[in-house]
Amino acid sequence: MFEKNSSVQKAEIIIIGNEVTSGLIQETNSRYLGDRLHSAGIGVSRITKVGDDKDEIALAVQEALCRVGIVITTGGLGATHDDITKTVLVNLFETELVRDEKVLRHLQAFFKSRGKEVPQALTGQCDVPASADIFYNKKGTAPGLLFHRNDKRLYALPGIPLEMEHLFEKYILPAMASSIKTKIRHRILKTTGLTEASLWEMAGPVDRLEEEVTVASLPSHLGVNIRLSTFDEDMNAIENRLDKAEASIREKIDSYVFGRDGDTLEGVVGENLLKKSLTLGVAESCTGGLISHRITQVEGSSAYFLEGAVTYSNPAKENRLGVEPGLIERHGAVSREVALAMARGIRNASGADIGLSVTGIAGPGGGSEEKPVGLTYIAIDDETGSRCKKFIFLQDRIRNKERSAQAALNLVRLWLMGIPL
Amino acid sequence: MFEKNSSVQKAEIIIIGNEVTSGLIQETNSRYLGDRLHSAGIGVSRITKVGDDKDEIALAVQEALCRVGIVITTGGLGATHDDITKTVLVNLFETELVRDEKVLRHLQAFFKSRGKEVPQALTGQCDVPASADIFYNKKGTAPGLLFHRNDKRLYALPGIPLEMEHLFEKYILPAMASSIKTKIRHRILKTTGLTEASLWEMAGPVDRLEEEVTVASLPSHLGVNIRLSTFDEDMNAIENRLDKAEASIREKIDSYVFGRDGDTLEGVVGENLLKKSLTLGVAESCTGGLISHRITQVEGSSAYFLEGAVTYSNPAKENRLGVEPGLIERHGAVSREVALAMARGIRNASGADIGLSVTGIAGPGGGSEEKPVGLTYIAIDDETGSRCKKFIFLQDRIRNKERSAQAALNLVRLWLMGIPL
Repeated sequence: MFEKNSSVQKAEIIIIGNEVTSGLIQETNSRYLGDRLHSAGIGVSRITKVGDDKDEIALAVQEALCRVGIVITTGGLGATHDDITKTVLVNLFETELVRDEKVLRHLQAFFKSRGKEVPQALTGQCDVPASADIFYNKKGTAPGLLFHRNDKRLYALPGIPLEMEHLFEKYILPAMASSIKTKIRHRILKTTGLTEASLWEMAGPVDRLEEEVTVASLPSHLGVNIRLSTFDEDMNAIENRLDKAEASIREKIDSYVFGRDGDTLEGVVGENLLKKSLTLGVAESCTGGLISHRITQVEGSSAYFLEGAVTYSNPAKENRLGVEPGLIERHGAVSREVALAMARGIRNASGADIGLSVTGIAGPGGGSEEKPVGLTYIAIDDETGSRCKKFIFLQDRIRNKERSAQAALNLVRLWLMGIPL
Repeated sequence: MFEKNSSVQKAEIIIIGNEVTSGLIQETNSRYLGDRLHSAGIGVSRITKVGDDKDEIALAVQEALCRVGIVITTGGLGATHDDITKTVLVNLFETELVRDEKVLRHLQAFFKSRGKEVPQALTGQCDVPASADIFYNKKGTAPGLLFHRNDKRLYALPGIPLEMEHLFEKYILPAMASSIKTKIRHRILKTTGLTEASLWEMAGPVDRLEEEVTVASLPSHLGVNIRLSTFDEDMNAIENRLDKAEASIREKIDSYVFGRDGDTLEGVVGENLLKKSLTLGVAESCTGGLISHRITQVEGSSAYFLEGAVTYSNPAKENRLGVEPGLIERHGAVSREVALAMARGIRNASGADIGLSVTGIAGPGGGSEEKPVGLTYIAIDDETGSRCKKFIFLQDRIRNKERSAQAALNLVRLWLMGIPL
């Protein structure tokens, strides 16, 4: 919907650097800028990444300026030999370099605060294009540049994320946002436990929602995020439309939606434990500590997380969790019976209100015909009773661990909410 | 160096999806493909990202096919309403969709192994462009497609990284690599324990190395990766140059280099434990399970990893590890004394040869003037003795956990190699 609205202002982003096209680094500026522009109500119609090659840079910039009114480049403004963006733009906009004393004073202050002189190699940073507006950079040495051509604007920013973000947030976004009346807002519904296909089968056709909001769904092996977007000049209208769409989706798949926007599953589980003043102990085999790690990513988790036991070996399951050796012999370490005994065992050992356990075969070794790689039992135990669920995850070792941990945390969430497992 | 070699074959990558241009997700396929193509000796001259808009997609594909001989697209091959890449390409290459029974059989097998029927919504995946070569996808439901126009090739791959990587590695890369004479090879030296600045101070000037190889250094909060690159038609010449550069760097900073290329610190620690037939038990407080999680990411880690104890609460430290309550009272849970007692405790409890422990204040709460956020003690204990190191990490909770886990694993590595801590 937003994308279809032709009155929305359009921008393009150009990322410059061999380290980007050759995959040496995971570039993040384009995602940052895409997100910030989109939220400000400016559509990003294209992102282009080119190497440190003057013809490629010039071509990409010219093409972008033909298509849209706002172009933002990042990278190639440093002082080393492969930083050529400034030279390319000076030629393209038919201007020349002039010494800017204010940049020089900025550089001197920047280095003085670090107890140093301005290195000779950096004095070139004081030469700026005569026709460009200059954005002074407090976080680094390369100033940002703004070129005008008719009613089109090209912003050139340094590639270091900290510097790029500083200049974008301080100078560029405020100027853009003030000229835009239409606000765009997103809401993300986070789900787990359904594939994308079955989610939309249960939730019903998207078209019905898309009269009022744009819907994007984002699947991963841990769940599906649903993004609802809409725009308006009136913030109340935006909120109402998002609320209505959310309610309409939740009506069908509420128990699968664990949170919104920045929520994490471990955070939601933590909140629910806090709300009910309950504590948790975790016994992990195949997940190897990942569940405890995720729980303790949350600030303040020490209030409800007492202890984790990564009982990788059978003796550890017996000694730490009191699992009967006979049980492992009879049913195998990966079994419903052992999962339940582990959950009870960690609850007793830790003194927590709730015991959670996982035992499974992460792979790639250790599988058999009867018990294939990916077979996983997750159990929960508290004073009201216990429950065990069986899963078969068909991915690689690392993703099997991740899916097991996700399913285990979700089981605690459902248990706390009283939703039948 | 490689970029200046004009005889190198060029490719472009096109990433398709509103979730990418709007910054909803951090897209990683273009980095993966850029890196893999670059390593195979194919230069990536441009990466373009466009939204789910048929005109934008068609334009981007046509432009790319004008400029280079190889174009790879990812995304938009799923079965939901906004997946339009296949339709766009069918029009562009003037072909039509035909039902492919082999895709249908693939889908049926894919879902059968998960105990399910093929959802109605996915049957469209069996309709493929008549003129395209089909790459059957074992990891998902969308097949990959190869279109030919004169001597140019367009590969369309699904956007889910697991599926994209599977099809690229299995079908596309082998075919490309066999046709290329000039080989480019990289070697990455992975270091931890030094900042980028101190690393190059110790290792000496890069210029000296750059006569024979290109050097790039990539810092993160966990260490610095050094990438050495060179190209030649003769693989021996390549290997010799890389060996020489590596030796020259290692001469100065050998104990900080923990591995090469795909090595992980947890993998290197595991190899060293296996080689010495030693077992490990881990007691974690502030890292919350992350060390055990990392160790168990390695296939076969059950051979040397016996047990992890995530002793978040003080009672857990006492009951699980036998840490004296008086010790915690006198010195506090975050202290050299408690770290050493935890390492000894997990060694005794698990029966492992080596006990490793971490106790610290991850933050943001829990700090004091005497014991600030980030204060961390890491201890190791075996039959030959014990040692404890103190660190102060000055980042946020999540990075403090990551740095603590990295430092702890590195301590085990140095201990096993007999390098003084």
